[in-house]
Amino acid sequence: MSAPALRGVTLVLGGARSGKSRFAEELIEAAGLDRVYVATASAYDEEMRDRISEHRARRNGWRTVEAQHDLAGALASQTAPDRAVLVDCLTLWLSNVLLAELDAPLEIERLLGALRAAAGPVVLVSNEVGFGIVPDNALARAFRDQQGRLNQRVAGLSDRVTLVAAGLPLDLKLPKEPQ
Amino acid sequence: MSAPALRGVTLVLGGARSGKSRFAEELIEAAGLDRVYVATASAYDEEMRDRISEHRARRNGWRTVEAQHDLAGALASQTAPDRAVLVDCLTLWLSNVLLAELDAPLEIERLLGALRAAAGPVVLVSNEVGFGIVPDNALARAFRDQQGRLNQRVAGLSDRVTLVAAGLPLDLKLPKEPQ
Amino acid sequence: MSAPALRGVTLVLGGARSGKSRFAEELIEAAGLDRVYVATASAYDEEMRDRISEHRARRNGWRTVEAQHDLAGALASQTAPDRAVLVDCLTLWLSNVLLAELDAPLEIERLLGALRAAAGPVVLVSNEVGFGIVPDNALARAFRDQQGRLNQRVAGLSDRVTLVAAGLPLDLKLPKEPQ
Repeated sequence: MSAPALRGVTLVLGGARSGKSRFAEELIEAAGLDRVYVATASAYDEEMRDRISEHRARRNGWRTVEAQHDLAGALASQTAPDRAVLVDCLTLWLSNVLLAELDAPLEIERLLGALRAAAGPVVLVSNEVGFGIVPDNALARAFRDQQGRLNQRVAGLSDRVTLVAAGLPLDLKLPKEPQ
Repeated sequence: MSAPALRGVTLVLGGARSGKSRFAEELIEAAGLDRVYVATASAYDEEMRDRISEHRARRNGWRTVEAQHDLAGALASQTAPDRAVLVDCLTLWLSNVLLAELDAPLEIERLLGALRAAAGPVVLVSNEVGFGIVPDNALARAFRDQQGRLNQRVAGLSDRVTLVAAGLPLDLKLPKEPQ
Repeated sequence: MSAPALRGVTLVLGGARSGKSRFAEELIEAAGLDRVYVATASAYDEEMRDRISEHRARRNGWRTVEAQHDLAGALASQTAPDRAVLVDCLTLWLSNVLLAELDAPLEIERLLGALRAAAGPVVLVSNEVGFGIVPDNALARAFRDQQGRLNQRVAGLSDRVTLVAAGLPLDLKLPKEPQ
């Protein structure tokens, strides 16, 4: 395989049901390190519980940590050189931060700081939500804007950025040197 | 041209009005085989009739077969080594299956079985619908999920998968050996 | 850098908040020519005014021309061999044309004619809006169709077409010869 080794920060972007979580899990499983799953979902409704249990069934051999709001804190405590951390996903985290009326710009800066300071590899899953028609309601438009800006900022500091469609990866950014 | 020869199963993904159908037709026309168009559309409203007649105007030299529900059956009877089959499109077919309250998981397995057993090249057109904001209503969310899963499964068994945007192809998966 | 020199027509496609405008501006700034910004936005509401002022803050050293409807005329008068023109964006322009109930097919032909006749490099920004679920209302569906067709036509005559996601470019079409 010519896939790059897992190091630094990796952003996996994709649409709904694109296979982005599975692709991110496989990146980490191929690395042969300890595995931590940072879950940003709150199991607030049945639809979400179904998705979480489906994901969980795939993740034997992972340790799970919940971080619905304090993602920066979870990254600071969980990253380590011999351990790969999966954050699934930034879209739910951003949604949680906005719903809880936290200071979103501050939380985003804290997240970016924690990613820059991470002690080991981190893979983040996020939704690409801007390729549809303009949403009717202002809240959905605002969320779409904030998600787009967050994805740009995380992509900017990532070593690798991959877009997933129909389960297949398309690299947008790759580490510069050979591993 | 360095385009791969047409063989096995090809999935052409794209957004609305992305030029995906035209790209799929050109793949088949370049192959120089007999051409069959498997139409999954039902001409249930004027908007759809306009689109169908526009597509039809481009397809002189094609034989047309309708398969609103039994796509597996159509593939079993229509595929042949000297014949290229175009299915346009999986999104309408999935929508038809759900509207008719057929057993969708069973129909999907039948479709995948028919693709694995196809006696000649098949090109399938499907919509990528997951790159927008989460839809407001649960039915649209459920459809989006089912379409995403179907695209992943068909992509998994395809020899070639191409994403089309603004009429331009971007290969996500290519046949391994030279033709 | 192996980036192609700026010449002819360049189409930059992207989702909302994808970084497409910034990418287009950087293409032009790297070319070292005089810079003209053709703004298609009408500052009709506060949300739009905020976006315009944010874009403007990045564009010191640019001359700004407004073209809410007559984009063909603006291109005819503004393009020149020593000058790079940025059109931001086709989506707002198309929306303006439709809202003003102008003859959209005629205006689109005039635009395509002006692009073919441009006296210097032009970079156009446009939204990719077709990757979501089918919109509920007929007007949004019609707009999505018209935007998709417009993108295909402009892409067809462009020398370079680039899709931007999370601020990162993915080339769909590149100039044939080395520059």
